[in-house]
Amino acid sequence: MFPGAGAARDDANYVVVGAPLDVSTTFQPGTRFGPDRIRRFARTFDDYDRRTDAHFSDLFVHDQGDVRAWDDAAEYLDYLEGVVTDVVWDDAVPLVLGGEHTVSVAGVRAVDPDAFVCLDAHLDLREAYDGNELSHATVARHALDVADEAFVLGARTGSEDEWDRAERDDVTVVPPEDVGEWSPPERLRERSVYLSVDIDAADPSVAPGTGTTEPFGLEGRELRDVVRAVAPLSDGFDVVEVNDRDDGQAATLAGKLLREFVFTHAASE
Amino acid sequence: MFPGAGAARDDANYVVVGAPLDVSTTFQPGTRFGPDRIRRFARTFDDYDRRTDAHFSDLFVHDQGDVRAWDDAAEYLDYLEGVVTDVVWDDAVPLVLGGEHTVSVAGVRAVDPDAFVCLDAHLDLREAYDGNELSHATVARHALDVADEAFVLGARTGSEDEWDRAERDDVTVVPPEDVGEWSPPERLRERSVYLSVDIDAADPSVAPGTGTTEPFGLEGRELRDVVRAVAPLSDGFDVVEVNDRDDGQAATLAGKLLREFVFTHAASE
Amino acid sequence: MFPGAGAARDDANYVVVGAPLDVSTTFQPGTRFGPDRIRRFARTFDDYDRRTDAHFSDLFVHDQGDVRAWDDAAEYLDYLEGVVTDVVWDDAVPLVLGGEHTVSVAGVRAVDPDAFVCLDAHLDLREAYDGNELSHATVARHALDVADEAFVLGARTGSEDEWDRAERDDVTVVPPEDVGEWSPPERLRERSVYLSVDIDAADPSVAPGTGTTEPFGLEGRELRDVVRAVAPLSDGFDVVEVNDRDDGQAATLAGKLLREFVFTHAASE
Amino acid sequence: MFPGAGAARDDANYVVVGAPLDVSTTFQPGTRFGPDRIRRFARTFDDYDRRTDAHFSDLFVHDQGDVRAWDDAAEYLDYLEGVVTDVVWDDAVPLVLGGEHTVSVAGVRAVDPDAFVCLDAHLDLREAYDGNELSHATVARHALDVADEAFVLGARTGSEDEWDRAERDDVTVVPPEDVGEWSPPERLRERSVYLSVDIDAADPSVAPGTGTTEPFGLEGRELRDVVRAVAPLSDGFDVVEVNDRDDGQAATLAGKLLREFVFTHAASE
Amino acid sequence: MFPGAGAARDDANYVVVGAPLDVSTTFQPGTRFGPDRIRRFARTFDDYDRRTDAHFSDLFVHDQGDVRAWDDAAEYLDYLEGVVTDVVWDDAVPLVLGGEHTVSVAGVRAVDPDAFVCLDAHLDLREAYDGNELSHATVARHALDVADEAFVLGARTGSEDEWDRAERDDVTVVPPEDVGEWSPPERLRERSVYLSVDIDAADPSVAPGTGTTEPFGLEGRELRDVVRAVAPLSDGFDVVEVNDRDDGQAATLAGKLLREFVFTHAASE
Amino acid sequence: MFPGAGAARDDANYVVVGAPLDVSTTFQPGTRFGPDRIRRFARTFDDYDRRTDAHFSDLFVHDQGDVRAWDDAAEYLDYLEGVVTDVVWDDAVPLVLGGEHTVSVAGVRAVDPDAFVCLDAHLDLREAYDGNELSHATVARHALDVADEAFVLGARTGSEDEWDRAERDDVTVVPPEDVGEWSPPERLRERSVYLSVDIDAADPSVAPGTGTTEPFGLEGRELRDVVRAVAPLSDGFDVVEVNDRDDGQAATLAGKLLREFVFTHAASE
Ligand SMILES: [Mn+2]
Ligand SMILES: [Mn+2]
Ligand SMILES: [Mn+2]
Ligand SMILES: [Mn+2]
Ligand SMILES: [Mn+2]
Ligand SMILES: [Mn+2]
Ligand SMILES: [Mn+2]
Ligand SMILES: [Mn+2]
Ligand SMILES: [Mn+2]
Ligand SMILES: [Mn+2]
Ligand SMILES: [Mn+2]
Ligand SMILES: [Mn+2]
Repeated sequence: MFPGAGAARDDANYVVVGAPLDVSTTFQPGTRFGPDRIRRFARTFDDYDRRTDAHFSDLFVHDQGDVRAWDDAAEYLDYLEGVVTDVVWDDAVPLVLGGEHTVSVAGVRAVDPDAFVCLDAHLDLREAYDGNELSHATVARHALDVADEAFVLGARTGSEDEWDRAERDDVTVVPPEDVGEWSPPERLRERSVYLSVDIDAADPSVAPGTGTTEPFGLEGRELRDVVRAVAPLSDGFDVVEVNDRDDGQAATLAGKLLREFVFTHAASE
Repeated sequence: MFPGAGAARDDANYVVVGAPLDVSTTFQPGTRFGPDRIRRFARTFDDYDRRTDAHFSDLFVHDQGDVRAWDDAAEYLDYLEGVVTDVVWDDAVPLVLGGEHTVSVAGVRAVDPDAFVCLDAHLDLREAYDGNELSHATVARHALDVADEAFVLGARTGSEDEWDRAERDDVTVVPPEDVGEWSPPERLRERSVYLSVDIDAADPSVAPGTGTTEPFGLEGRELRDVVRAVAPLSDGFDVVEVNDRDDGQAATLAGKLLREFVFTHAASE
Repeated sequence: MFPGAGAARDDANYVVVGAPLDVSTTFQPGTRFGPDRIRRFARTFDDYDRRTDAHFSDLFVHDQGDVRAWDDAAEYLDYLEGVVTDVVWDDAVPLVLGGEHTVSVAGVRAVDPDAFVCLDAHLDLREAYDGNELSHATVARHALDVADEAFVLGARTGSEDEWDRAERDDVTVVPPEDVGEWSPPERLRERSVYLSVDIDAADPSVAPGTGTTEPFGLEGRELRDVVRAVAPLSDGFDVVEVNDRDDGQAATLAGKLLREFVFTHAASE
Repeated sequence: MFPGAGAARDDANYVVVGAPLDVSTTFQPGTRFGPDRIRRFARTFDDYDRRTDAHFSDLFVHDQGDVRAWDDAAEYLDYLEGVVTDVVWDDAVPLVLGGEHTVSVAGVRAVDPDAFVCLDAHLDLREAYDGNELSHATVARHALDVADEAFVLGARTGSEDEWDRAERDDVTVVPPEDVGEWSPPERLRERSVYLSVDIDAADPSVAPGTGTTEPFGLEGRELRDVVRAVAPLSDGFDVVEVNDRDDGQAATLAGKLLREFVFTHAASE
Repeated sequence: MFPGAGAARDDANYVVVGAPLDVSTTFQPGTRFGPDRIRRFARTFDDYDRRTDAHFSDLFVHDQGDVRAWDDAAEYLDYLEGVVTDVVWDDAVPLVLGGEHTVSVAGVRAVDPDAFVCLDAHLDLREAYDGNELSHATVARHALDVADEAFVLGARTGSEDEWDRAERDDVTVVPPEDVGEWSPPERLRERSVYLSVDIDAADPSVAPGTGTTEPFGLEGRELRDVVRAVAPLSDGFDVVEVNDRDDGQAATLAGKLLREFVFTHAASE
Repeated sequence: MFPGAGAARDDANYVVVGAPLDVSTTFQPGTRFGPDRIRRFARTFDDYDRRTDAHFSDLFVHDQGDVRAWDDAAEYLDYLEGVVTDVVWDDAVPLVLGGEHTVSVAGVRAVDPDAFVCLDAHLDLREAYDGNELSHATVARHALDVADEAFVLGARTGSEDEWDRAERDDVTVVPPEDVGEWSPPERLRERSVYLSVDIDAADPSVAPGTGTTEPFGLEGRELRDVVRAVAPLSDGFDVVEVNDRDDGQAATLAGKLLREFVFTHAASE
């Protein structure tokens, strides 16, 4: 159980769903261990948050464990979408723990937001990767099937086609150097947002334990400030691509960002 | 390049093919790093083998590198089967480095042996695993579509269905305690054999770096003695399921077994 | 949850209790991660066991999670004893996952056996260690406050006082070289036994991930055979001293031994 | 021996005391390996420091090794206090290498400063933790029994009670974002200061090897600048909470900060 | 092969040469694994670079593998110099992957530049280290036998003699705090430059996997900006001192810097 | 200090000398960390040994620390020979902790035995390796310049020249399979012996942390029994080739073998 996420499912305002999918990881596998690892490294955090003057365990968070993964991504995402949809229908905010980024496709489909805001080193705008239309590298593309627009914050690499696709009006790319200055545009105030954190948005020094490390990324506080800015607008959240190939840096950051999301979202209600 | 495998492809009697498939690994992923890791830990071995009085680099071994994997196992196995078939048509013996055990399906189909001899902790006789008919847990089943019989040496676990299937006449299971006494039956002398080494046949103390460790397994010398006994009968060989999650034990054993296979096979010609 | 331990508490014949105590570990700490790690590495095991023709998930095993530890060992053991006593009163067999060996004191007090059978590299017969009467090095001593006799199988080191104490009639020491030949004496047939497995009984090659490694120890199968021999006589079981400082070898062995205990015990009923 | 700390005890102006206490660590243990690890990673540093134009080995630093720890924290701290008091009575500055933060209690009692300046992610102002009044989480509280005021630099988390306690006049909390601008207030110029560095003040990317990692922390240079600013005022110093669970980052930083303390302190005499 | 470096040797504008020398490493060895590790972690990078609108695989980079090292550094450097000289004579730019920093001596001798620009935590201006004139700590000294001047960017430590040597007119030291503001002086515009990146110029949080970590170093983007600024002036490049003792941080940065060099250099032609 | 080795140098019957040479290691470096690591993992051992009824700390063992290494092996060995010769002249038995196997050359020259008994996977009978006459692969050759004969126990690999050299009368090779049955020949009873343990004699499962792992090796007890058999005849001892690339298995075995040597030698006096 994510520490402090002991609310009953019926009472929950937030529901943690582990989604340890790990089939299309391009380089270093291990995201299947992400949900457990995030929960484990979150054990060190104080229940109380001074900024919002709230205890995490008072915020009605329920951890319903993992949706065990198998290796047919399409089937798995359908099933996961159902699980997340149940959360949404119960008027709770889903908090998905990846697993590879592909799990966001299920989250986005279930939440059906107007905008997809993503922290990521990669554009994830491919139509397919190695012939796979449900690769982690296609997530933003799939999100745009649901949402009207996408923001990719911290992006610093992609294929030529992805960069060309990113120039269309429905995509906003914020390079790492500009993320510190970024705030959500006014038009999002009235709209539904899904916030997805691919932990590789962080610099490899900050989150070495991820599948495809990409230098020149974000500091922890930059990710935090985006989460704080976007959480009040959001109806769904995930943090993904954490694996077990470091000394806990990626997991501790991921767990902290989930908490920042919940504290901020709850305080804004 | 596997050390000493510098023969030209045209001259080769043995061809190393890396097959870093890593999609259906049930527990700990990382077999995609197996071929490179086996090659790397083989750097410490002397070129010369006293038992057979031969230099590895004189035995016409060619390393043609890896068949890069993607995540559609069925397609990949088709492609890999083509690569291995080319080796067979050139009258060379394929030496496949996994990757997950599933790659043996391609090897067996290409070699088309009479018998499939396998060192494995697991029966691998499932029809499917999690709905996947091309999981590592189905390898012996697929092999029996090609070969007339299968031997699973060192097997110590399986599902009830697998154990029932194993009681049929075309399967011989040799438990770990009896592998030391085992030798190939006479009837194999005249037949074509494919030898597959799933490194998890070894005890976890001997090969910790594999996807699904299973205690009470074989010592290194027991694997070696099987390889020496079966190599003279074999037209194809693989060693699979090595990952990068130990301190080199699994890889160093795998590389050594490949060499034992080649030295013994060459000496028996 | 230990895989397959999904029975309801009320129906349970066996109850897994995690006891992640980690305060008196002399050398390498980390036993606090033992219970989780044992559960995790047990995920690879097949539910079915051919030897006893049983499915683990049919044997009414309940995992009630961990009794969270704090650093007052005396208080903690009192509390843990209460938890294990509840299991005993419900006519179920407790299966304690350590945590340092000290947790066996609670197990033994709750089960109140006639004999204490222990696999251990160490005699654990000290009166105190560094002034601490509840150190892991005193476990057998405390057990003898409850039980009439103790067997220490695989023991190969101790202080001079411990060895002298071990020569008294109520202690039987079986050195590692003789464990393979050992079987429980006849007199135990009618008596109540508590079986405790300190994973450091195994050779460091077999279980490197433990606090105080001691060379020249047991092979995995030797531990297994003791568990199989003693399980039918036992009313309580624990496996302790697994930490997270190896590549899974200690944990995978510990989980397997717990399963061997349950399969054998259930088959003997 | 800490490299360069080869002065005789009698001649020493600075005395290194290792204090490998590791009993109350909440999450990841291993601080018992801190002193050795700090010494080991300090081997790479040049003896000479250009900023202060001094050689470390000329500054009369003596390393008297470790005060071996046992698991009764109260007794141990009494004993350690005696050891550090001897250093103080010899007019030398103690440099304590932890071990868990609790060892600062002994350091502060021996030095008896007017002010306690601490770099820490945590407030450490609890009265007790899990019923333990000598937990690492109570250090600043104990320091305030001795000193008139405390500064906690880099603090970003605590319980509600700790934050309330921190609002009293005798505590100054400087959040991580403001540490770069901080300098010691004028009133400290005439007063005796004890400087304690809990390495978890640093961001987890900078010091992953510590018991309770807390994101959004300090950069290495920010810790350094605090040490440089406070060293001239200080009569005692420690660096604590380094464990062996990273690739050397925490230890290399800790050893460097100790050197910065000595170079700066010596230059200010 | 470095990913994308598939040009034929004859067509190459850039030639990657691995130089896994690892004999004089002072503290933590392992640079012999540097070239392979850099190639491996570079697999995750997109072929395309948006800033320069180029594909790496279109830039005529050839990877000719490693010049296998032995333990006579003087002989090895002679041989390596020959290999790099061949590259230079073919009008290609050598890209050397270390190995210890000493390999730059061969690179500089082959390229024969007017200026040596180096990113390094250390001055590397010793005449000898432990009596060895071909130690990694003497690299800048040797470079000054060839080049007219040297720049050491990010330097923060050295012996007293090195610092004194650095005050001569032919050496410019830029401390880490000033590297962000630095740009190559005008006089270099017309001159030939060799650019050497000792990965320990980066902060240990950014590149833990190197022989002699030195805190208070550079961020990844600072190294990148130096590479971008100097690449257009350069006729040779190396990145050195990466070992296998971290989770990939040092290698991923090194591979990325090599790519930044090539993309920038090619765009400036 | 090796635990228990606290005798004064003048009183010592045994002197521990650390020799962290690490220049010619062929594959995986790190033997420079061997001496420290052996001392550290020996902390878990009881002072008392039941077999010989002795306390290690009563046997007059002095640890004089390490002879710091540099990278000129010839010079280093000369210096080390001097250090060990001093031990011999003081009528004490030297116990050298490697470091690479090359350090045995200094030990053998100082002790000047009639016979060299070596546990090793490798013959180490080369005249040179990569042109280096002082490589670890030449140790037995150098020993034969001093001693009349050499025994290589556990040897399983070598070059063709080494195997041919091994057939001469002055070399006895005992393959791993026969070591269990081996005992020193009668003629050694009256002669002076030097016993050298290259930890790679052990199977890689038993000692993964060594430079050149070679499968099919010895169990821990087999090494122990050789040490027990040869110690009474020996005037010098070393254990070498332990590095830091495993989870402590190689170091814990090495430290235990040193203790077995001392206990047995002392009991035979
Ligand atoms: Mn992504
Ligand atoms: Mn990404
Ligand atoms: Mn298999
Ligand atoms: Mn298997
Ligand atoms: Mn015990
Ligand atoms: Mn024990
Ligand atoms: Mn603290
Ligand atoms: Mn803290
Ligand atoms: Mn350098
Ligand atoms: Mn450097
Ligand atoms: Mn050797
Ligand atoms: Mn050897």
